[in-house]
Amino acid sequence: MALIVQKYGGTSVGSVERIQAVAQRVKRSRDQGHEVVVVVSAMSGETDRLIGLAHAIQPRPVPRELDVLIATGEQVTIALLAMALEAVGCPARSYTGSQVQIRTDSAHNKARIRDIDGARVGSDLEAGRVVVVAGFQGIDRAGNITTLGRGGSDTSAVAMAAALKADECQIYTDVDGVYTTDPRIEPRARKLDRITFEEMLEMASLGSKVLQIRAVEFAGKYRVPLRVLSSFSEGEGTLISFEEENVEDAKIAGIAFAKDEAKLTVLGVPDQPGIAHKILGPISEANVEVDMIVQNVGSDNATTDFTFTVHRNDYDTALRVLHETAEHLSAREVSGDQTIVKLSLVGVGMRSHAGIASQMFEALAREGINIRMISTSEIKISVVIDEKYLELGVRALHEAFGLAKKTIL
Amino acid sequence: MALIVQKYGGTSVGSVERIQAVAQRVKRSRDQGHEVVVVVSAMSGETDRLIGLAHAIQPRPVPRELDVLIATGEQVTIALLAMALEAVGCPARSYTGSQVQIRTDSAHNKARIRDIDGARVGSDLEAGRVVVVAGFQGIDRAGNITTLGRGGSDTSAVAMAAALKADECQIYTDVDGVYTTDPRIEPRARKLDRITFEEMLEMASLGSKVLQIRAVEFAGKYRVPLRVLSSFSEGEGTLISFEEENVEDAKIAGIAFAKDEAKLTVLGVPDQPGIAHKILGPISEANVEVDMIVQNVGSDNATTDFTFTVHRNDYDTALRVLHETAEHLSAREVSGDQTIVKLSLVGVGMRSHAGIASQMFEALAREGINIRMISTSEIKISVVIDEKYLELGVRALHEAFGLAKKTIL
Repeated sequence: MALIVQKYGGTSVGSVERIQAVAQRVKRSRDQGHEVVVVVSAMSGETDRLIGLAHAIQPRPVPRELDVLIATGEQVTIALLAMALEAVGCPARSYTGSQVQIRTDSAHNKARIRDIDGARVGSDLEAGRVVVVAGFQGIDRAGNITTLGRGGSDTSAVAMAAALKADECQIYTDVDGVYTTDPRIEPRARKLDRITFEEMLEMASLGSKVLQIRAVEFAGKYRVPLRVLSSFSEGEGTLISFEEENVEDAKIAGIAFAKDEAKLTVLGVPDQPGIAHKILGPISEANVEVDMIVQNVGSDNATTDFTFTVHRNDYDTALRVLHETAEHLSAREVSGDQTIVKLSLVGVGMRSHAGIASQMFEALAREGINIRMISTSEIKISVVIDEKYLELGVRALHEAFGLAKKTIL
Repeated sequence: MALIVQKYGGTSVGSVERIQAVAQRVKRSRDQGHEVVVVVSAMSGETDRLIGLAHAIQPRPVPRELDVLIATGEQVTIALLAMALEAVGCPARSYTGSQVQIRTDSAHNKARIRDIDGARVGSDLEAGRVVVVAGFQGIDRAGNITTLGRGGSDTSAVAMAAALKADECQIYTDVDGVYTTDPRIEPRARKLDRITFEEMLEMASLGSKVLQIRAVEFAGKYRVPLRVLSSFSEGEGTLISFEEENVEDAKIAGIAFAKDEAKLTVLGVPDQPGIAHKILGPISEANVEVDMIVQNVGSDNATTDFTFTVHRNDYDTALRVLHETAEHLSAREVSGDQTIVKLSLVGVGMRSHAGIASQMFEALAREGINIRMISTSEIKISVVIDEKYLELGVRALHEAFGLAKKTIL
């Protein structure tokens, strides 16, 4: 018998029929002897409907009231799921974030969980009930309703699992696990049975949007074993674990990519201390987040070239700001490119295996793909390439590192 | 400067535009120097939509979870109204029943308010804010969400007014006050400027569904001055007051009626002590509520005839039960009639004016309307007549007691 926290997202509870299917799945876990706490999101579309109402009244709704409004989305789901569980003979009880005391800070619309009082949930579990908790929402010290921001239900589930010292936190989504890369690009992409937390963090932040990155961080911090599974099919999903030695002995976990990047370069900046701050300070003041940063010495040794990437939505803002800065710094030239993508090779095995980088560059070169930027960390190597090479690049790396499904032929 | 509690029902907040209109109206009260607490219902149609979802899952939804579900209706409204108030420059803050601590018993779906903690609201008012409270909902001792049942928002508003010792509780509806009778039947019906609590109770319970009867009782108990107004037009509405002497010196406040009544009679029951209980006990066990009760001595002096009225929906059940009882008691005959209505003359003036009853019977007789049952109380006289005479009866009494508008001709 184990204590399991299961989280079902908006698509998994998107209709009465799907909520009934979730009830069946929860019942099955319970019939296997497990204690189950379920964390749910709002029915798909509901949060957007509510935000639409708010915007009809205020273009920028008061954050506190927006939270009061959208917190109703999950409240509807918990009630309906508790009914569906009772209807299949599974005693259940629902709790809002406020009732179960998911305590957060007061940053409305993007609150962070401080702690959870597991006491009330514990006594329900002892009484043999399934506990259904509203994800995404909490309560601050003053009793105001808060929400965690988009995708926050994953974090709620992990936090609940941590508070209850659950044996496993299962995140049910519309995919059946974490893949070596996006199967829409590489049909031979393979589902991973296990992946480490560090790898998952890189995969998540690099565009494999299976799990909310904050949830993964939270799980890592509190050492909550996480599992990603499909709510529409059977299967073991992917376990996100701590033990590196147990992870399949592959050096590379997968290939992540980010399509919506744009690259900006300022050429011929006087090479002085503090120049990076002078360039990036105004960018950050304009609320633009910078991803990769690369600095090269310029051709004349007295100036430097400075390149960074931003989200494509922020490209125009960043370019305008950069032009102003460049003029101020008497830089030679500003250029930009919106037709780039970022490819990343992720794997803890990299640490102990030399030559991964050169193997990667070679694989891309073989296909005639020019690398425009490179950035590395302990467990990942990212390159920026022309967007027209995205699919080719992903497939070339997938092949080069032997990530494809083992076919039985 | 006064402290006013305003309550807006589902129709008054039925769309974004109407919520904005309510915000304007609240702002006007505030601009006049009043402190305002607003109690709102769910947007019209929303509660039914939510109940529909519940019924799609469980024909008889778990009462606790149904409350969790439908309480979201008012929560949506309070957030949107608070935003609309802020948008017109009126600082506002919303509270759910749980946040403002509307404490109730644990009778889910039909809870009764025990008390309200006005402290939080008080400090917001001091800070110059309009406080927006979710009607219809509360919280029980264990922290479970409860609802008060249909129309409970009126009661929430009155309870809030009582807790805050408000100067007036204003109930905004889609009518502009309490009328001498239903204007759809008697176009010359006149809006009353004032009515006493006792009269209002009789008017409400007899079918003038302007105010929830429990809310009127509550207001009477805690001596909260109530006012009924239209949220769609201007005007002073009708004040429901305590001081009888101030009430316009009319003997009669108005004429109420109930269309959905049915009459059942058991003839020739042995006239023994306890016979009423023997007849009505099984009816009440079948969950049928009895309205008027009349007992006459039968023609032979050894038996009695017993007649009572029930809601027309309960007629079949009541008739079946009564047949069983009659057989058991060896009664002569059972008869019933679903084509009746009840007319009531209501007015505190009746107490001190003799002859009202005979004036009433005479007015009906003049129109050839046969009276089938009579029942009286201190401030009302009710008669049961054939339903085909409903409109004629109402108009005859309205005329006989001089209730019509004073026309300027």
